[in-house]
Amino acid sequence: MSRLLEDAVSELAKLPGIGKRTALRLALHMLRSEEQEVAQLIEAIGRFRTGIRYCRECNNLSDDELCPICSDPGRDRATICVVEQVGDVLSIEKTRQYRGFYHVLGGVISPMQGIAPSDLKIDLLEERIARGDVREVILAIGTTVEGETTLFYILNRLRRFPDLKVTSIARGIGFGDEIEYADELTITHAIQNRQKLDLNSD
Amino acid sequence: MSRLLEDAVSELAKLPGIGKRTALRLALHMLRSEEQEVAQLIEAIGRFRTGIRYCRECNNLSDDELCPICSDPGRDRATICVVEQVGDVLSIEKTRQYRGFYHVLGGVISPMQGIAPSDLKIDLLEERIARGDVREVILAIGTTVEGETTLFYILNRLRRFPDLKVTSIARGIGFGDEIEYADELTITHAIQNRQKLDLNSD
Repeated sequence: MSRLLEDAVSELAKLPGIGKRTALRLALHMLRSEEQEVAQLIEAIGRFRTGIRYCRECNNLSDDELCPICSDPGRDRATICVVEQVGDVLSIEKTRQYRGFYHVLGGVISPMQGIAPSDLKIDLLEERIARGDVREVILAIGTTVEGETTLFYILNRLRRFPDLKVTSIARGIGFGDEIEYADELTITHAIQNRQKLDLNSD
Repeated sequence: MSRLLEDAVSELAKLPGIGKRTALRLALHMLRSEEQEVAQLIEAIGRFRTGIRYCRECNNLSDDELCPICSDPGRDRATICVVEQVGDVLSIEKTRQYRGFYHVLGGVISPMQGIAPSDLKIDLLEERIARGDVREVILAIGTTVEGETTLFYILNRLRRFPDLKVTSIARGIGFGDEIEYADELTITHAIQNRQKLDLNSD
């Protein structure tokens, strides 16, 4: 096999979820594409990887010092939604329901992976809250063991702000999920936190 | 969303089989990877796309004027296997059963897509045969309408070599395929071209 092809395939196959077969298909597709199109792809990846920055306020991905969300005057300054990572911001933004700010921790506490609280942007979160505009912090952190540890750690740190309301996103059975297949902890939580249905609503 | 991220995602999502969701996952993965690793990926793709050549003998992908197969003195010069595209060579090579040369047409005749016989490397094939070493040409072309058209067209062109043996790969039910689900043409072909089983073989 051509070494140039082999190199391209083996590099592509290092990407998650892309096997040798798919990598080959991608490489051969690039060969059929215009050279200009492939150059565009390469450039976009390169510019992204080397040019991307982290917002100095919320640690979200950003092209500038402040991300588009933090520099949006139309957003609700009183609420900060704390998430593990950038992808979570994108998922929540897609719902178009949340109008507050975010705070990207950059991971969760994990002694196994050597991630200590100091590796996360918790100091930065406190600084933002100390400035005084924030009234509620929503903790939208995954329900893994590490996630729960992180949640309680942050909750503890935020006790120094007596007027701050700290909430956690609702846990429960997801829409479209079968109760039969939900795990015990989720079901327990979902029953304990059951919600009153309003029989008189229209 | 960051424009750098958006650009990277939209370029990645142009690749076949990669949706917006996967593209985002790949981009975020690249962010977690070392800058060096991403640079390697980009370089390998760029070198492949701009540096790759086509073998002057067989039209296979090549790093040099002659591809590794055409420059291999251990291969059988008497046989040429004609295929549609580069991927076919790789698939046949993977079986490690075929020891002859190849000839990559670069497509099949398709009036719909504006691919005429002159767009394929058929002249080059004739030149190779005219040099006199070749005794058999195996046509390993897909069984689409365009493939069959191409096969008969080449068969006709090769009539000018009276001593040349021209064969087609066997058509039939693939290993692991259910006869129940095979199409009529394949079944008809498989029955017409049934093979005698040797009851006395050891």
